[in-house]
Amino acid sequence: MTPGPVPVPQNVLDILAQQMEHHRTPEFMSVLARVWERLKGVFGTRERVFLLTSTGSGGMEAALVNVLSPGDEVLAIVSGKFGERWAEMAQVYGAHVHRLDIEWGKAVRPEQVEATLRSHPNIRIVMTQACETSTGVLHPVQEIAAIVRRTGALLLVDGITALGALPMPMDAWGIDALVGGSQKAFMLPTGLSLVSFSARAWERIETAQCPRFYFDIRAERDANENGETFFSSNVPLIKALDAVLHDFERLGQARVHARIATLSNATQAAARALGLTSFAQSPSPSLSALALPPNIDGQKLRAEMEKVHRVIVMGGQDRLKGKIIRIGHMGFIRDEDCMATVTALGRTLMHIRPDLFSDTQVAAAEQAAREELAASPS
Amino acid sequence: MTPGPVPVPQNVLDILAQQMEHHRTPEFMSVLARVWERLKGVFGTRERVFLLTSTGSGGMEAALVNVLSPGDEVLAIVSGKFGERWAEMAQVYGAHVHRLDIEWGKAVRPEQVEATLRSHPNIRIVMTQACETSTGVLHPVQEIAAIVRRTGALLLVDGITALGALPMPMDAWGIDALVGGSQKAFMLPTGLSLVSFSARAWERIETAQCPRFYFDIRAERDANENGETFFSSNVPLIKALDAVLHDFERLGQARVHARIATLSNATQAAARALGLTSFAQSPSPSLSALALPPNIDGQKLRAEMEKVHRVIVMGGQDRLKGKIIRIGHMGFIRDEDCMATVTALGRTLMHIRPDLFSDTQVAAAEQAAREELAASPS
Repeated sequence: MTPGPVPVPQNVLDILAQQMEHHRTPEFMSVLARVWERLKGVFGTRERVFLLTSTGSGGMEAALVNVLSPGDEVLAIVSGKFGERWAEMAQVYGAHVHRLDIEWGKAVRPEQVEATLRSHPNIRIVMTQACETSTGVLHPVQEIAAIVRRTGALLLVDGITALGALPMPMDAWGIDALVGGSQKAFMLPTGLSLVSFSARAWERIETAQCPRFYFDIRAERDANENGETFFSSNVPLIKALDAVLHDFERLGQARVHARIATLSNATQAAARALGLTSFAQSPSPSLSALALPPNIDGQKLRAEMEKVHRVIVMGGQDRLKGKIIRIGHMGFIRDEDCMATVTALGRTLMHIRPDLFSDTQVAAAEQAAREELAASPS
Repeated sequence: MTPGPVPVPQNVLDILAQQMEHHRTPEFMSVLARVWERLKGVFGTRERVFLLTSTGSGGMEAALVNVLSPGDEVLAIVSGKFGERWAEMAQVYGAHVHRLDIEWGKAVRPEQVEATLRSHPNIRIVMTQACETSTGVLHPVQEIAAIVRRTGALLLVDGITALGALPMPMDAWGIDALVGGSQKAFMLPTGLSLVSFSARAWERIETAQCPRFYFDIRAERDANENGETFFSSNVPLIKALDAVLHDFERLGQARVHARIATLSNATQAAARALGLTSFAQSPSPSLSALALPPNIDGQKLRAEMEKVHRVIVMGGQDRLKGKIIRIGHMGFIRDEDCMATVTALGRTLMHIRPDLFSDTQVAAAEQAAREELAASPS
């Protein structure tokens, strides 16, 4: 029950167990063409969506190095570990980095972005997370995009923990590069990143001076026009992605998003019944980051939930180590998995601090979660 | 029967079908530690071997960008498509590239490398393939390494189609960076690259000026020292690699190499019986590139072998399109798969050119292959 990697559905595991096919066969090339087309629906774009063999961070690098020239002024919205990653990456590739530092656990306010762009009119690229996985915060991407659109800058969005879990229509909102990763709402193992660029970004790509080879999206585009990926394709993951996207289509994206929201609501309701608050002030439905009282060690809590209850959640990263726990709502999660997580959390809190948590509270948490789950179709 | 991706053994497919584990669990971290240790045996090194989520080309990029500074003079040995890749990549990252162009199908001669290094004493990096997958040629890596070692240059070896298929002892030979890929002799799907650096390379890594983030091996080293990969691990592939390396250890590397050599010998003997010659003058045991008579279209041959006999081999790439076929000897290949390939090749040649190929020849080819296979344990 971590915010990624996530549980993988059985039909997907079955596909991963199929014998390897070559990536230049007509059979695989037709799967690839279908996946590309289906991904456009998830990204809400008419542009090509690229499949790269890398983790999500490789997708972020692809988004950046293809539009950056050394010396460019860029703005990194930093509200957690992955915002730091944008800033570090841009620094490494020779950008002049402005940081908009936001207190961890809070979302950026659109007017903060507006003011920063006004003070630094030469900013050419703005980088943000949609959901900052380290804090569970959802940033107001649509509003940010509207502001960036009024300038000459491009907006790069790390949608790794958002795409497929909530609406993120790239073209309608005016996002210039959107990045996803296989091990989140796409319910697959780690290994693929997904990235798409706006027409405006493509103009920049042609002139950008940052050196790039493995992540050079121009080579990838040319290969895709011939129905292939430029480098060897990750055949099993792409076939599995095809099956996941087929299910997304069958259910409809709204229902996929609603399911994740239901799991989030159930978890947040249970947390409230236990007297815990959301660490994220504007939580993403894709994961719940729960603040722990200062007298509870999150690492101990996490370890005991795993050891005693076989439920794996994540703790905090970097400066949040021990202070929060993070529970994911993406992937193949059944009602009973959600309930088991609530029970494990409640029982473990009670075991660690019997003075603070009671049986009654745990029962109330379970009841609250159960009601939220019952209110929506699974 | 392509030179990669290759057939995957059933026990490996079973592992790929297991439910996803989180990469920060103690269970997975102990698998990771074991894989790192086992890989040292395959690489013949005491240095760390890194697992990167990328195709083999990403591993090549990691080898290069970590030791390169823009403006460095480098030497690319170019004898096929993958030698071109080294040269292009170095160009992109700002190197002053010297090319040692070798006729496709021939191996570089050590004295050519020696002469080039003498004419350009400022060369700081030499890049070669061990096996050039596009032509089937095996370069004399040990001799090249001995020559490079006498200069201040580093030797980077693309061992993607060689590592695990033939001896390539990095420390003993004096290779400074060695790259492998999961979808070759490691018998896995595409998705992981493997790379290791010599102590001499590590000195260069600390001062190299090429910008790098996703492939920054210093971040990876620091994470590995804490028992983790820097980015999310490709959990299923690493668990599967553990099983493959376990089998390598159980059988012994010599036997794994001998099996591949047997499949190569059988295929080459059959080809000779059919009157075909090896395109590679110094063939690698990992794949056979067979030259076709000018009146036989390799693309048609390949297509018919696939359609009629369900045997997939590869054709030539780039300038070799239609002129050669390439048959892989890595991966989970049984005697009967090898025989089916020989039969498919013979029958298809006979069908396309009944005037040139006869039943008797096909039978002789099958007999030649059968004898080679019988001479060695499978």
